[in-house]
Amino acid sequence: MHRSRIGGIFIDHPAESFDASRRFWAAAMGRQAEENGPYSSLGVFDGDVVVELQRLDDDTPPRVRLDVDTDDVEAEAARLEALGARRLRSYDHGRYWQMVDPGGLVFCVITPHTSDFDEKATRWD
Amino acid sequence: MHRSRIGGIFIDHPAESFDASRRFWAAAMGRQAEENGPYSSLGVFDGDVVVELQRLDDDTPPRVRLDVDTDDVEAEAARLEALGARRLRSYDHGRYWQMVDPGGLVFCVITPHTSDFDEKATRWD
Repeated sequence: MHRSRIGGIFIDHPAESFDASRRFWAAAMGRQAEENGPYSSLGVFDGDVVVELQRLDDDTPPRVRLDVDTDDVEAEAARLEALGARRLRSYDHGRYWQMVDPGGLVFCVITPHTSDFDEKATRWD
Repeated sequence: MHRSRIGGIFIDHPAESFDASRRFWAAAMGRQAEENGPYSSLGVFDGDVVVELQRLDDDTPPRVRLDVDTDDVEAEAARLEALGARRLRSYDHGRYWQMVDPGGLVFCVITPHTSDFDEKATRWD
């Protein structure tokens, strides 16, 4: 008998985009990054997360992509843009934005996937 | 005021590797994949997850990578191999394995990152 589960999400960047992307993700999540050699921990996140496979219809290579859930897509996209991300394009009449971090890594900003959003989300004033 | 958090992990695959990878991840996580157009949901995962940035010292492009936490790295790597994954290489004398899913997406199999592993992990007999 043994056990397993998903326990870690690693955001890997080459040296040239690492510092800007580390600063971006720490600010995006409201965390202080803790350095440890080539790693920068943003700590433990708790709560629910949806895991889905998506079939791509273009020649994008296999990838894992994070979704930032929010109760105000436009305000969150603008906040992340001010932190160094870039908007690629919006879908469903602005219901979600596909964006890239300072190193070009794709992520999305979208309405909440899970029922514990109110309890677990970070508030930005 | 608005709020945000990480709420979704999407494993994106082109059409050619989508079916094999969907079957792999559903079996790897012990879930039934639920089809919805180009999406296949593996449902909601709850509990803690570590989020870290990693500085890569080669020319790997920016990526997000999942870690499968386990209390028996060799047994879990063998289980995932039997499901269609492939071992790339081990680190730290077998403390963790870097593997790829059927579509070539990199992930790692490693000892637990979080204190709620015992409570949240799936048991494989």
